[in-house]
Amino acid sequence: MKYGFADRVRYFDSSAVRDILKVVNKGDVISFAGGLPDEGLFPVDAVEKAFSKAIRSGNKALQYAETEGVMALRKQLAGRMSKKGIQRKAKDVLVTSGSQQAIDLFSRVMFNPGDVILTENPTYLAALQVFASYETQVIPVDSDVDGMIESDLEEKIKQHHPKCIYVVPTFSNPDGKVWSQARRDMLMKLAERYHVVIMEDDPYGDIQFDPASMPKSLAAMDTSNQYVVYTSTISKTVVPAMRIGWITGPHQIIRLIAQAKQAADLHTNSISQHALSHLLNDYDLDQHIETIRETYKGRMEIMKRRLDNANIEGLTYLEPKGGMFFWVTLPERYDPQALLEIAVAAGVAFVPGQPFYVGSKKRHTLRLNFTNATPDLIEEGMDRLVKVLKSV
Amino acid sequence: MKYGFADRVRYFDSSAVRDILKVVNKGDVISFAGGLPDEGLFPVDAVEKAFSKAIRSGNKALQYAETEGVMALRKQLAGRMSKKGIQRKAKDVLVTSGSQQAIDLFSRVMFNPGDVILTENPTYLAALQVFASYETQVIPVDSDVDGMIESDLEEKIKQHHPKCIYVVPTFSNPDGKVWSQARRDMLMKLAERYHVVIMEDDPYGDIQFDPASMPKSLAAMDTSNQYVVYTSTISKTVVPAMRIGWITGPHQIIRLIAQAKQAADLHTNSISQHALSHLLNDYDLDQHIETIRETYKGRMEIMKRRLDNANIEGLTYLEPKGGMFFWVTLPERYDPQALLEIAVAAGVAFVPGQPFYVGSKKRHTLRLNFTNATPDLIEEGMDRLVKVLKSV
Repeated sequence: MKYGFADRVRYFDSSAVRDILKVVNKGDVISFAGGLPDEGLFPVDAVEKAFSKAIRSGNKALQYAETEGVMALRKQLAGRMSKKGIQRKAKDVLVTSGSQQAIDLFSRVMFNPGDVILTENPTYLAALQVFASYETQVIPVDSDVDGMIESDLEEKIKQHHPKCIYVVPTFSNPDGKVWSQARRDMLMKLAERYHVVIMEDDPYGDIQFDPASMPKSLAAMDTSNQYVVYTSTISKTVVPAMRIGWITGPHQIIRLIAQAKQAADLHTNSISQHALSHLLNDYDLDQHIETIRETYKGRMEIMKRRLDNANIEGLTYLEPKGGMFFWVTLPERYDPQALLEIAVAAGVAFVPGQPFYVGSKKRHTLRLNFTNATPDLIEEGMDRLVKVLKSV
Repeated sequence: MKYGFADRVRYFDSSAVRDILKVVNKGDVISFAGGLPDEGLFPVDAVEKAFSKAIRSGNKALQYAETEGVMALRKQLAGRMSKKGIQRKAKDVLVTSGSQQAIDLFSRVMFNPGDVILTENPTYLAALQVFASYETQVIPVDSDVDGMIESDLEEKIKQHHPKCIYVVPTFSNPDGKVWSQARRDMLMKLAERYHVVIMEDDPYGDIQFDPASMPKSLAAMDTSNQYVVYTSTISKTVVPAMRIGWITGPHQIIRLIAQAKQAADLHTNSISQHALSHLLNDYDLDQHIETIRETYKGRMEIMKRRLDNANIEGLTYLEPKGGMFFWVTLPERYDPQALLEIAVAAGVAFVPGQPFYVGSKKRHTLRLNFTNATPDLIEEGMDRLVKVLKSV
């Protein structure tokens, strides 16, 4: 039988990263491809205790729950944001099935086919997938290491009347950069002047290698809670499998997202929500985040040393101030897609930069994750990668 | 600031049932309103053990997982369906965040604005919400106690060229009826003749009061796996808070749903998935389902006796052969919406039938849940309700 599908499936695309992961998980390949935290750091005992407490906390905890999320958890998340200067009421915090769902539900309430979204370039691949599935038009804004460039942003706002500016301003995926405070001020000023909503996607914000140097979150700067929709997650700091993220922003938007979520999946796994609530009470998550920061910083430095010593003419990279990725620019003679096949055969994997860009212009970048592999494997994997780079 | 939302938000609607539940959960109201299983029957010990085993089963279980679901669980679900005559490969079983998400993702890959879906009338309220949010056109088909009526179904297929026929053929929500085998044969015949996909929504199929008398699942009849997309859930038989459902059907449709799910939330909570997999191995779920059937059948009979003895001229109902609901038709002098306010004041709640119907014609029906309240509370609640009905 021939099926008639929705027009939007034409814009569906299986994630290049997830397809690579399927290949890479087979055999003796050291993978710098995924965006995975280190399983060895998962607080397994604390997670087990928290789930046990949640399940034992009364049979009501196992029943259907409110779409917006478990109130105790929403209050705790609001409290944690407040410490970062993001002042939001618990009623404007909605728990999602990971921050991926936050991007999807936000898109569902905001975008008609043809609507324009401004993004950085490169930007988070799976956000681009969501935006494409809503048949929107994504327009990239010129950026440098400090963030979007004012003149190009203003011009594109005036020309395209975007519904939204989507940014990952702190340890962006894929390129790991941090927007300067001046550029954040500029972005907020233009959003206010032209009445554009900003989506601030902040999955990595807690993984800071130098906390003292961090600029303010955009949501913290939006003191009137009018312009910034903010999303974050515990996937990088507790465990991904709990699938807990959240979204906060203007009340009117969050209320519509709650209606969209009711239709999408009724509510987020409430055993996980209660468990996270217990974990935040009973476990020192901030101390754990300190451990994660130190561990990942150490691994980043190992990878950096190998990159510095690689001695490959024309190879450049941005030194990560946090997050999970190195973003490497190769000389033009390299084709990262072809390189990947050779690299996997040599026992090391990465993600070619291409899918993170809007537009089809040929790119010579690649993303290296430094959080999932142990130091020994990072050294071995980088040796393999450098050998491949030198051989091509 | 004035926000520009997507056109689809015009069709969003907060669930009438969930809004009623918010009122009802306050104070001393006996609620027959929700579609909630009895918390007292939750297999708490088994669930706790299963989660503990999942969390202890290796840190990989806490990492990001495959979008389609945990393979061990998909195989078990395929095995359980196979026992009901539904032969599907594990690769065509996709785990969702409850069967609500299955309806949503199916809609996302199938429907353009304006597409026609044929449904029973009344039908599952939250499916109507999903269909509305995709700006589809829902057209009801005339039905009697045995299912849709052939002549009307065929005429509407010819006239409207529907993309899909959505049915809850076994213990339908809200009216609890079971389609006869003959009507199921008829539906399959017309779907094949006119090439229309059927969505069979089966959340209640396991809650049978007389298993010997049950007709076949539509998915079991679709031996070529071409016409029926089937969805079910463990929310009514294990616990709702685990948020595990699944969807199976033609490979081409399931593959697109996997791409849609990747964008929607990456994957379903994998701790829950591993836990359910352990529970299915270590715990006798079929024995537990037997207990649920007996308990709910007893409660249904208590409610039935009260309805029979109510002595209200013109009140009729369908005797449930399973599931969770009585569907009561009142004489025309009653306005169920106005009645609800009086009933809540008198300490008992139900759901007025209106929101379950397509179209705005005035209805005199109400839905009574018999699974969530204990026998004592059912008797007390029915006394209150009958008193209210007599006083109006």
